[in-house]
This record gives sequence, C-alpha cells and structure tokens, in this order.
Amino acid sequence: MRNIKLTLEYDGTNYAGWQRQTNAVTVEQKVEEAIEKLTGNHCEVIGSSRTDSGVHARAYVCNFFTDSAIPENKLKGAINNFLPEDIVARECEEVSLDFHARFCSKGKRYIYTVFNGRQRPVILRNYTYYYHRELNIENMKKAAKYLVGTYDFSAFKNKGSKPRNSIRTVTEVGIVKKGDFVIFTVTGNAFLYNMVRIIVGTLLDVGCGRFEVDYIKYILDSKDRSKAGKSAPAAGLLLDEVFY
Amino acid sequence: MRNIKLTLEYDGTNYAGWQRQTNAVTVEQKVEEAIEKLTGNHCEVIGSSRTDSGVHARAYVCNFFTDSAIPENKLKGAINNFLPEDIVARECEEVSLDFHARFCSKGKRYIYTVFNGRQRPVILRNYTYYYHRELNIENMKKAAKYLVGTYDFSAFKNKGSKPRNSIRTVTEVGIVKKGDFVIFTVTGNAFLYNMVRIIVGTLLDVGCGRFEVDYIKYILDSKDRSKAGKSAPAAGLLLDEVFY
Repeated sequence: MRNIKLTLEYDGTNYAGWQRQTNAVTVEQKVEEAIEKLTGNHCEVIGSSRTDSGVHARAYVCNFFTDSAIPENKLKGAINNFLPEDIVARECEEVSLDFHARFCSKGKRYIYTVFNGRQRPVILRNYTYYYHRELNIENMKKAAKYLVGTYDFSAFKNKGSKPRNSIRTVTEVGIVKKGDFVIFTVTGNAFLYNMVRIIVGTLLDVGCGRFEVDYIKYILDSKDRSKAGKSAPAAGLLLDEVFY
Repeated sequence: MRNIKLTLEYDGTNYAGWQRQTNAVTVEQKVEEAIEKLTGNHCEVIGSSRTDSGVHARAYVCNFFTDSAIPENKLKGAINNFLPEDIVARECEEVSLDFHARFCSKGKRYIYTVFNGRQRPVILRNYTYYYHRELNIENMKKAAKYLVGTYDFSAFKNKGSKPRNSIRTVTEVGIVKKGDFVIFTVTGNAFLYNMVRIIVGTLLDVGCGRFEVDYIKYILDSKDRSKAGKSAPAAGLLLDEVFY
C-alpha cells in the first residue's frame, strides 16, 4: 500500500466546494473519479479542508492510498489525463503511510481579491468581489492588526458551525492595494467555517467607514457573530497554500 | 422608430460566437432575447462583426431598431437586467437612423494574449493561449512590420471563406512582453475570417525559430494560406474596440 500526497490547483466556479455531496458535483468527486479511472480501484481521498462552493485553490493538498504500481514520476501526468480542465494536479509524491492531509496540516494561507475600481472586467466576475465603495486602506491595515494572534474567533465563524473550540492562531492579515485590486492575505494554523470571508467582510466595513478601527477588538472580544460584518462572497477566495 | 447603438463586453467562453445559429447558443441570441423581454417586441440586432466560438469582447458594437419609449439613460441598465452575467451592456445611446454597426465601422482593434510562462494558472485557461516554447520577441516585432500596410491578406484567411476581395489595411501589429504574457495588438480597417488568429500563429512561428523573419513577406506575397502558420486558439482573442 502506498500513500500519495496530491497538490491540486482548481477553479471552483463550477463546483459545490471540495467535499462530496449527493446532489451536486464537487472537486473531491472529480478527483476520486479520476484516480479510480486511472487505478481501476475505489478511492477515497483525504482533503486538507473543505472549501465552499465557488472558492478556488492554487495549491490544495489531499492524500489517498493505492496499490497501484504506477511510478511516482508518472502519477501527476496520469491523473491529469482523467481530470477536467478546471482541476489540475500540480505535484504528486509518495509519502509515509502516516501522512494525513488534514491532521498533519500546520497551517494555511488564503488570498482574497476585491475589485475596487470603476468597472470590473466581465472575465473577473468569478474570481473577485466587486466592492464599489471607497476604501481607507490604512484604517483597514490598523484594524487587521487586532486579528493577528491567538484568540477565540467565535465572532468570525458561520453561525451554523459547532467546532469543539473556536480558538485559532492567525499569523498574518495582510492588505495590499494594487491598482483597482485590494488583496487580502490571511495565514493561520487553522480556520473556522467562513472565518476568512467574515474577516474580509468586516475589514471592508472598516474601510468604508461603517466600523471604527478599534471596533474590531470589540467584535473579537464579544465572541458574537452578529457583531461582525457580512461574509464576503466565495468567488474572491483562493486557498493559496497548506503548510506541513 | 429609434436606432440604438449598444456596446457590449462579453466572456465568449460559453457561446458559439456572436452570430445566431440554430443548434448552439450565441451572444447575438442572448442580446436579442434580452431586448425582446425588455420591449415586448421581436428584435433583430445588427452586429459589427462575427466573432468565433470562445472569442471575447471588451467593446463589441451592435445596433437595433425599436419603438420602445424607454429613456436613453435608462436603456443600459434595463437591458442588463435581462442579460446573463457573462454579457454586459457598457454603453447604450440613440443614434441617427442610418447608423449601421457593420457598414459604418471604420476599423477594429483586437488583442491576443499568449501565456508564455512555466505554469499557467487554471483560471486563465479560457482567456489565454498557453505557448510553451521560448520566444524571440525582437524577431517577432521585426516580422510584424511586414504586415502593416494595405495588402492582399489571402495567406492569412481561413481557407473556407470566400470574401469579395482579400485586400485589407492593417495599421498596427504591436507585440509586448509583460512578465509571463505576450500581448499582441492588431488594428486594421477590417479583417478576413480568422485573420488575427493566423497572424498571431504565424508570428509565434517566427518567435520560436520555425520561420525566419523575412519569411513573413514571402507568405504575404504568396497569397497561399498553406504557407502561413496555424490559427492560434480562439480563447486568447479579444475584440477590444470598434471604430466609427
């Protein structure tokens, strides 16, 4: 038995997220089908995280076990032959049997892209959040600093989710303006459900003046989801890297 | 009766080009349906040109006649309400009754985007041509100069097309390298079928060393399609502007 670590880039536009569902097409399903076609055997892939419907990935990591004898250096190309064009295997390597894409993950980096110009090109509609209001980037950067550290992020998680605990460590909330784009980089050891999107939505509320800079600290302390801003749309979000 | 000039941006990925077809969904069909829903009357839109399946537009121009009393400044928004999200009305103005989007056109500018880096992001697959080989941009620029002027461009037209004559005036064939991208700008009074894509394909043959720089002049003089390079894929092509 071999354990294969697979790194995928995908365009999430046409998928109901990563995780398999009965009534919708997901990335996991497409990846499992590709491996099954290649190896001839049933395959269950272990993902590093769920991603929401419409969220993209530059380097999503998953792993799977196989008895296939296909050489390591041929696997990536072989899997790509069976994947649709919006999912691409970027790396494929044999790892020790105890590697687990989710449990072994030490952290993740997400990138969120906002289009803040006058007229968004049509071809960016699935990859950016079109935000019209003028943004005070300096205030957003100041507010973002309150989110770096180890805190109970209950105010920044989807109401429906019930994690064992809501303490997470965020190591970076970067904000850069490049032309018409405002790009958020959020890195942490792990994330609650919708956490990055709620962080972005809340920082945009600071940027447009709806929230004072210091109000972010109050939201964090409140542990109350209703105090934070809206969850920013899925299309702007990209899982950039998973750390091991 | 009013004559309305409509400027559209569209992502051509999911359409079989501009012109109506019986068995495929086209941009023209979507635009006519939107106007019919808005005005309640049958509508035939006059396009400035055909675009191929998968080709995009930043500012495609068309016109249509209507008895609708909707004020000029409300028309754009009203049409957008009925258009799918990959087709967007950008400008909408009432023009004189003798305006004809095709016959009045004085020229067009196309942009063609090649990805020439190591690994193309998945989300660019529908908007770029992924060309792996190393390119000599200076040679391509020298070759491009042969194409600027008024010539019989028979060597650069799709074999199946039978235009009344093949003489066209090209005023610009620009080539710029920006990071991993090579961007072609081709401007002219009018274009033969597939002309821009064949120009790009042929200049790439110069760039990779398959053709000598001066060979372009020989191809042009030959008026023989089989001498030129392949037609570059539709996905990289964007109709950037139509001049009146």
